[in-house]
Amino acid sequence: MPRVSDQHLAARRRQILDAAARCFIADGFHQTSMQDVIRAAGLSVGAFYRYFPSKTDLIRAIAEETVGELLVELDAAAGVEPAPPLAEAMRQVLDIAERRISGDQRARIAVQVWAEALRDPELGELVADIYQRVRDRFTLLATRAANPEAVGAVLFGLVQGYVLQRLLVGKIDATMYHEGIVALLGPGA
Amino acid sequence: MPRVSDQHLAARRRQILDAAARCFIADGFHQTSMQDVIRAAGLSVGAFYRYFPSKTDLIRAIAEETVGELLVELDAAAGVEPAPPLAEAMRQVLDIAERRISGDQRARIAVQVWAEALRDPELGELVADIYQRVRDRFTLLATRAANPEAVGAVLFGLVQGYVLQRLLVGKIDATMYHEGIVALLGPGA
Repeated sequence: MPRVSDQHLAARRRQILDAAARCFIADGFHQTSMQDVIRAAGLSVGAFYRYFPSKTDLIRAIAEETVGELLVELDAAAGVEPAPPLAEAMRQVLDIAERRISGDQRARIAVQVWAEALRDPELGELVADIYQRVRDRFTLLATRAANPEAVGAVLFGLVQGYVLQRLLVGKIDATMYHEGIVALLGPGA
Repeated sequence: MPRVSDQHLAARRRQILDAAARCFIADGFHQTSMQDVIRAAGLSVGAFYRYFPSKTDLIRAIAEETVGELLVELDAAAGVEPAPPLAEAMRQVLDIAERRISGDQRARIAVQVWAEALRDPELGELVADIYQRVRDRFTLLATRAANPEAVGAVLFGLVQGYVLQRLLVGKIDATMYHEGIVALLGPGA
């Protein structure tokens, strides 16, 4: 095997992950074959399998990458000192979610990962781990509450519910949903 | 075809739907073949296909049935006059959700239906329609709020987030989550 630079490896990996994400968004995880991804990535079969031996490896890499970016954004929005008012922080969090929904559409892959995680114990563990890390961010947002862990879980739940309703039910947007959160929280938040 | 009673037809339908639900919960929607369901239902191939020509017909029937039962329960819990305090109503709603999670496990099928709905426009329409009906129940719960529709969407979102975290992340239960809701709502709810 010829020696290749780290930069080249990273670019190839990027090329494959982007192609896989496009395929999963368009056709679904189960309806996408490795052949589809290889074709979309424009690589040879041999080159491809050196990076990702299986579809599960692909979905794992996409999940880790997407949530990694999400955590960075959440930290930027909510990790400031002193903690922003809850209503303001949730507005920023909804905007982050909305970019995953109507922007790069990664949220559509997330829903597929959820379904797959219920069936594949290894992926289930990965999802539990990364969502625990996301939930921890919401717990930080809720430090002023009497029970930050419980309130954090509820705040995270709010956002998951927003993603699901945007994707599956429609007739809501971030502004309306945020109004609902503010109304629930009351004037003090 | 011999004449059969309505009761017989309903019993057969029940037998098939229960078998299909068991298969979908255990192996996932995509990993379950029609052969698997036919075997689990203990029917002949010919008898089976008279009831459900496709896997999509099965999942549609299960989704409609499950949400139909859910609406009845939500109406019983929240549709009373005068409307119960929000915190109390949400406790009952979480209990209803919990029965779908740790009881009959239908919530696991719901997550699969969500993923499938993003890919199959016809199923997507069905899901949008039935979840709109569920969300309308939450809007009724929020009639005292300034913006019942927005608050209803958020309350529904809360419950969806609970289901997802129970299934995918763990380390929460209905009591803790309810405490979080109460803490968020403040003492007035």
